[in-house]
Amino acid sequence: MNVAILGFGTVGKGIDEIVAQLEGAPLTVSRILELPDRLSDARMTSNMQDIVEDSSIELVFECMGGLEPAHSFIMQCLEAGKTVVTSNKAVVAEYFDEFLTCAAAHNAHFYIEASVGGGVPWIASLLKMKRIDAITSFYGIMNGTTNYIVDTMQKSHTDFNEVLKEAQELGYAEADPSADIDGFDVRNKTLISASIAFGGSCVRDFPVSGIRNLTMHDLDVMRTHARSIKLFGRGVSRDSQYALAVEPVAVSLDSLEAQVPQNFNLISATGATVGPLKFYGQGAGKLPTGNAMVQDALDFVEGIYPVYQMEGELTYNPELLSGSYVVRTQADLGSYGVSFTPFDEGYLQVQNLSAAAAHELLNKLLKVDPSSFMMAYPQE
Amino acid sequence: MNVAILGFGTVGKGIDEIVAQLEGAPLTVSRILELPDRLSDARMTSNMQDIVEDSSIELVFECMGGLEPAHSFIMQCLEAGKTVVTSNKAVVAEYFDEFLTCAAAHNAHFYIEASVGGGVPWIASLLKMKRIDAITSFYGIMNGTTNYIVDTMQKSHTDFNEVLKEAQELGYAEADPSADIDGFDVRNKTLISASIAFGGSCVRDFPVSGIRNLTMHDLDVMRTHARSIKLFGRGVSRDSQYALAVEPVAVSLDSLEAQVPQNFNLISATGATVGPLKFYGQGAGKLPTGNAMVQDALDFVEGIYPVYQMEGELTYNPELLSGSYVVRTQADLGSYGVSFTPFDEGYLQVQNLSAAAAHELLNKLLKVDPSSFMMAYPQE
Repeated sequence: MNVAILGFGTVGKGIDEIVAQLEGAPLTVSRILELPDRLSDARMTSNMQDIVEDSSIELVFECMGGLEPAHSFIMQCLEAGKTVVTSNKAVVAEYFDEFLTCAAAHNAHFYIEASVGGGVPWIASLLKMKRIDAITSFYGIMNGTTNYIVDTMQKSHTDFNEVLKEAQELGYAEADPSADIDGFDVRNKTLISASIAFGGSCVRDFPVSGIRNLTMHDLDVMRTHARSIKLFGRGVSRDSQYALAVEPVAVSLDSLEAQVPQNFNLISATGATVGPLKFYGQGAGKLPTGNAMVQDALDFVEGIYPVYQMEGELTYNPELLSGSYVVRTQADLGSYGVSFTPFDEGYLQVQNLSAAAAHELLNKLLKVDPSSFMMAYPQE
Repeated sequence: MNVAILGFGTVGKGIDEIVAQLEGAPLTVSRILELPDRLSDARMTSNMQDIVEDSSIELVFECMGGLEPAHSFIMQCLEAGKTVVTSNKAVVAEYFDEFLTCAAAHNAHFYIEASVGGGVPWIASLLKMKRIDAITSFYGIMNGTTNYIVDTMQKSHTDFNEVLKEAQELGYAEADPSADIDGFDVRNKTLISASIAFGGSCVRDFPVSGIRNLTMHDLDVMRTHARSIKLFGRGVSRDSQYALAVEPVAVSLDSLEAQVPQNFNLISATGATVGPLKFYGQGAGKLPTGNAMVQDALDFVEGIYPVYQMEGELTYNPELLSGSYVVRTQADLGSYGVSFTPFDEGYLQVQNLSAAAAHELLNKLLKVDPSSFMMAYPQE
């Protein structure tokens, strides 16, 4: 089967390498979309129409990232009846419904395994779980960069900014790290996971906070409470109501999540009959992400198509995600109408707060003390 | 689609419950094989021929356990062209090749997800990984009973025999606990995993030791070395050579494996491009195991058939699994021709031993000191 690759960066090259080594050569990369000044290979073109109008190409890998032109190119491919495999969480989070409608209208399929968790078989597992179970919750470490930062801080006892700089030098973090450290990357992955796990379109606007203000001292204090701090994407569902959040969580040192090293991901989902399942692996990178995308393509070759149940009428109820939060701030918490208790020197604990109320409070605190930090503190 | 259940114990009842709740009712349990004195339901029969000769039954769930009559019944179903879904690790480990040959000859399929890891999607994940990657190793916690025993010992600081008795009273352990605590259950699961991961028939005779001699003191000593002790099934492969073992492993407290609670399983596999993946969930139980079996049946309904690559010519090379071992014994280790160093009071360390040599040594030590205990001690 002839396939094309849009974008020949790290992941695009990974796909090309993996496809070349497949036994029985089920796929042939016949075209690659590249920038005009980088056409180093006879398969490369900078003209998207060369791919859209090539009827021999049945499947297109999109690994350009970003919203445009990725969104338009995906739509053009689907409209031409080509199946699309993407790793682009931003574009899926924004246009998932539109892509699915377009794919269905043109007898094409739309695969997104690599958009969440890189090489971790997370999307396929959610889809499989849903054949039998309602999924009542999911949560976990969905961003390798922030896990690398927290893990390195703990292991080398180095503060946030220094580790971030190091991660940028190693290529683990972007020059503009905001998407990772402010939680927007996890926000997209949480939104995609929720649509699939809960079976319907979800609100775009839900509480998102990151670890920009995390300090080595925060980790040291939490260690004395037998906790670490990890950035989680979280979703819960009850009947047709659901809530979502992206936030730092103080996880027990006895949890698997606390032990996730380097840039690995660990994502969990709970089904009514199967119970809790956890999936761990490389959340990004040339070959792991390339592997997930080629797996999607092999599913297509074998006639295994993803069935997204998106027709659920879901109601967003932020109260479903409620619990205890621990806050470090120089602002006067007493003036915000919440009751709190001392937690540790410099840290206060607020009970029974919804994630939405917690994030609203945090935003107010940040205006007074821009170094304020807040984390969910689940009961053991 | 009409299906039958062989054996209406815990798992059989779980299947029946789950099938009854499936949306769109893709499956109908039309017959159940039960003992003559337990025919409490119009679907039940004690005559296997009622199922074999019923041409409306396309798929049979085997959850009787044990070798016979499970083996004969599975063969009769396959010969009648019925697809079989089994959770029976003993019968799969013993007769896998025979079942596959018979299934192929009669246009039937043979599904075994629930035979390893219960509700954990382990077998399907190995099969999927193998579409792209050679699997170079697998390992992990494959037996919930022994994990429950070790976890409870650590958390309640109670010795082995007391926890075992408690586990038996709770129904977590069998009256004859040997299959679990001596490693035979994990042996079967390791053998099945190896055949699939490495793509060929594997030797039946490889090193197996369990945790019967594990003491609270062993766990306490290992904790001072920042380790816990877990019973692992392990396999490694290089080119077409492989080695297998079942043995206690001193795992770092920083590992995910050390934190696996209660009767959960955590199994890992490493592929060349996807890297290490880990899968966690309920390794047994009515609904998790039932779920895995119904998932297999839904694959069959959807035309997703397992493709086992069993034609590999594999050579067993026990040297591939070699490393350091820690031994507790009253026997005189010096008289067995191995060089060793002190590890801790009452514990000695032997370097560069193959698992096969280690287990041979352990068997000699047990004849002198029946309480001897040995565990793999991997380099960090």
